[in-house]
Amino acid sequence: MKTNLKKYFMEFIGTYFLVLTVGCVVIMGTIGVIPAIAVGAVLMLLVYAGGYISGGHYNPAVTLAALIRKALPWGHSIQYWVAQFVGAICASMTVMFLAKDILPLAPIELDIVPMFIGEMLFTFLLAFVVLHTATTAETEKNSYFGLAIGSCVMVGIFTVGGICAAAFNPAVAVGVGLLGLVTWKMALLTIIANFVGGILAAGAFFLTHVCTD
Amino acid sequence: MKTNLKKYFMEFIGTYFLVLTVGCVVIMGTIGVIPAIAVGAVLMLLVYAGGYISGGHYNPAVTLAALIRKALPWGHSIQYWVAQFVGAICASMTVMFLAKDILPLAPIELDIVPMFIGEMLFTFLLAFVVLHTATTAETEKNSYFGLAIGSCVMVGIFTVGGICAAAFNPAVAVGVGLLGLVTWKMALLTIIANFVGGILAAGAFFLTHVCTD
Amino acid sequence: MKTNLKKYFMEFIGTYFLVLTVGCVVIMGTIGVIPAIAVGAVLMLLVYAGGYISGGHYNPAVTLAALIRKALPWGHSIQYWVAQFVGAICASMTVMFLAKDILPLAPIELDIVPMFIGEMLFTFLLAFVVLHTATTAETEKNSYFGLAIGSCVMVGIFTVGGICAAAFNPAVAVGVGLLGLVTWKMALLTIIANFVGGILAAGAFFLTHVCTD
Amino acid sequence: MKTNLKKYFMEFIGTYFLVLTVGCVVIMGTIGVIPAIAVGAVLMLLVYAGGYISGGHYNPAVTLAALIRKALPWGHSIQYWVAQFVGAICASMTVMFLAKDILPLAPIELDIVPMFIGEMLFTFLLAFVVLHTATTAETEKNSYFGLAIGSCVMVGIFTVGGICAAAFNPAVAVGVGLLGLVTWKMALLTIIANFVGGILAAGAFFLTHVCTD
Repeated sequence: MKTNLKKYFMEFIGTYFLVLTVGCVVIMGTIGVIPAIAVGAVLMLLVYAGGYISGGHYNPAVTLAALIRKALPWGHSIQYWVAQFVGAICASMTVMFLAKDILPLAPIELDIVPMFIGEMLFTFLLAFVVLHTATTAETEKNSYFGLAIGSCVMVGIFTVGGICAAAFNPAVAVGVGLLGLVTWKMALLTIIANFVGGILAAGAFFLTHVCTD
Repeated sequence: MKTNLKKYFMEFIGTYFLVLTVGCVVIMGTIGVIPAIAVGAVLMLLVYAGGYISGGHYNPAVTLAALIRKALPWGHSIQYWVAQFVGAICASMTVMFLAKDILPLAPIELDIVPMFIGEMLFTFLLAFVVLHTATTAETEKNSYFGLAIGSCVMVGIFTVGGICAAAFNPAVAVGVGLLGLVTWKMALLTIIANFVGGILAAGAFFLTHVCTD
Repeated sequence: MKTNLKKYFMEFIGTYFLVLTVGCVVIMGTIGVIPAIAVGAVLMLLVYAGGYISGGHYNPAVTLAALIRKALPWGHSIQYWVAQFVGAICASMTVMFLAKDILPLAPIELDIVPMFIGEMLFTFLLAFVVLHTATTAETEKNSYFGLAIGSCVMVGIFTVGGICAAAFNPAVAVGVGLLGLVTWKMALLTIIANFVGGILAAGAFFLTHVCTD
Repeated sequence: MKTNLKKYFMEFIGTYFLVLTVGCVVIMGTIGVIPAIAVGAVLMLLVYAGGYISGGHYNPAVTLAALIRKALPWGHSIQYWVAQFVGAICASMTVMFLAKDILPLAPIELDIVPMFIGEMLFTFLLAFVVLHTATTAETEKNSYFGLAIGSCVMVGIFTVGGICAAAFNPAVAVGVGLLGLVTWKMALLTIIANFVGGILAAGAFFLTHVCTD
C-alpha cells in the first residue's frame, strides 16, 4: 500500500478510537474523573502509536494548524479531513450499536459566548502544544509529545467541561452530534470555535518558536 | 541461565503480577477509577521492566500478534504462552490465599455480542499499540511504549468495562475464570475475542506501518 | 520577532493557562482529585511545550531559583516576572468573565505558621526539581522533566492543600487573590513563602548537584 | 562538598519528602485514590530529581537490592541507610508539627501472614523494577525509570493496601510507626518483609537480566 494511504488509514483508526472512547464514556454515564482521564489517555496512546506515521492528528483543527505551520503539505488536507470525519461517523455507529439499550441523554443547553471561548481556548492550547512538541527540530526524538497532547484534552474537560461540549476537535463534535449529546447548532458552533483555535495556535506558534540552531 | 529461559521467566513474573493486581483490585472490591488505573499502571511498569528482555507481552494475544508481525520467532510461541498461563494460574492462587476470608462475587452476566465486540476492539488496540511503539525501527529507543501500552488497558476498562470482562488478555481471562469472577463460557468467549483482536491488529499494522528509512 | 520577546511571550502564555486552569477548577467547584490533577497536568504540558523556548517557568519563584543557579541571565529577570504576573492577571479576568454567574467563594482562613511552612516546603521541592531535571548537563535531553515538575504541584495540593493556598507560585497567588479565593494578607504571605522556598532550593541544588563529567 | 556527601544529602532530602507525603495524606485523612497517587507521584519525581546523583533509592530495601546487584559499592551502605532513616524521622516530626491539632488515628490491626506476603510481594516488585530500569546498560538513558518505579508503589497501595501497611520501604515503616499509624510490632514485621523482598528481587534480577551486548 502506498505510504500516503497508510497515513490516511492511521488517521481513520485514530479518530475512530478517540470518538469511540468519547461516546462510550459519555453514553454509559461514567462520571467524575473518568471521561477526562479516558479521553486524554486514549488520545495520548493514539498519538504515540501513529505519530511517526501520520503525525497523529485525529483532529481537523490540528490538521489545519499543522498545514498553516507547513508541518503537513496542503495536498494532504482533504484526505486527512475525510479520514477523520469518516472515523468519527463509524465510531458513533459503533457506540449506538454497543449502547443500543441505553436511553439517549438530552442534549445539554449551554450559554453561547462562554461555550465558544472555552472551546476556542483549549483547542488553541491543544494545537499549540502539538506544534511545539511534535513538529519542531528543537524537540525532535522527545518521548513526551503524546503525554503533553493527551493531557491538554484532559485538562480542558476538567476546566471548561461545565461550560462547553469540551470536544476541542471538529470530528469529535460531529460524533457527539450524531449521538445526540449536543444539538447540531451547538456542534456547529463548536466546530467553528475549534478551527478558530487551531488558526490562532499556528499564529502563536510563529510568535514563540525559537530556532536553537 | 540461558537467555531464552530468562525471557520465559520474565513473561512468567510479568503475567503473575498483572493477574495478581487484577485479582486483588476486583476481589477486594475497590471501585471507581481504582481497578482501571491499577491494572493499566502495573502493565505499564512491567512492560518497562521486562521490555528489553522478553518484549514485555504478558499476554498470549499480544504474543500472537508479535509472531505474525515477525517481532518474535515462532520457536518461542509455546514457551511464551505456557509461561503466561502458568503465571496467571499462580497469581490466581495467591489472590485466593490473600483474600480467603472474602466471599466470592457472583459472576457477572453479559450480553454476548457487545461483550465480544468490546473485548475484540480493545485487544486490537492494545496489540496494535504494542506493534507500533515497541517493535518498529522508526520508534526505537523511545521511552513512551510502556505508558502507551498500559494506558490501552486503562482506557478499555473505562470504556467497555460495563459490557465485557475487560481482560483484553487470554491469561487474564483464565485468571478471572479461576477466581470465579466470570463464568467459564464467558472466559472462553473472551479468549477467542482476544486472539481475534490480536490477529486483526497484526493485519492493521501492515496496513499502517511506514518505513521512514 | 526577537528571540527574547518570544521567551517573554511564552512565559505569558504559559502563566495565563496555568492560572486559567487554577481559577476554573476552583471557581467551578470541582472537588476531590480534579484540581490537583488538572493543575499538575497543565503545568506539565506547558513545561513540555515551552521548555525549549523560555525554560518553562511560569512561576516567579522558579525564575528566582534559576537566576541564582545561573540557568537564566539576570538581564531577563524583570521581563520574566512581568510576563508571568501579566499572564496571571489576564487569566483571572478570563475566569471572572467565564464564571460571572457563579457566586464567589468566601476566602478560606488558615493558620499562619503551618500555611507558611507548607507553601515553602513544596515551592522548595518544585524549584529543586526544576533545577535538577531541566538545567543540568547530566540530565540533558531527558523526556521526564515536565512530568516531574507538574507532579510536584499535584503532590503539593494533595499533601498541604488543606493547610495552605497550595499556590507554590507567586503568580498563582496573585491570580487567586484577584479572584477573591484568598485574602490579600494570605496571598502576600504565600508570595513570601514561595520566594523563600525558591531561594532555599537554589542552595540545596548546589549541595546536591553532582557533575558526572 | 564532596560527591559522596552530596549523594547522602540527596537520599536524605528524597526520603524526607517521601515520608512527609505519606504522613500528610494519611494523617489528614485523604481518602480514595489520593494517598496512592500522591505517594506514587512523589516517589516518581524524587527519583527523577535525584536519580543521576544517588540512584534515587530513598528506601533501605532498594539500597540493599542495589548492593547485592553491585549497582552501589558496599562502602556506601551504612551512610545511605542512615540518611534514609534520618530523613524519615525528620519528616515524621514535620508531619506532627503541621498536623498537631489532628487526633491520631488508632493503629490498624492486620492479619500477619497476608500482611507479610503483601509487603514482600510489592517490595520485591519495586526493587525488581529499580534494578531493571535504573541500573542496566541495556536501558541506559531511558526517561521512564521514575514513572515505572513510582507506579509500583501506587499499584501496591491499591492492591494490598487493605491487608498490609503498604510501606514497601523500611524508612516509611519507621515513619508511620513514629506517627502511631501502625504498631511497632507491625512496623518491625513490615521492615523484615521489605528487606526479604529486596533480597529476592536481587536474585530474580540475575535470573532475568539479559545482556544485549
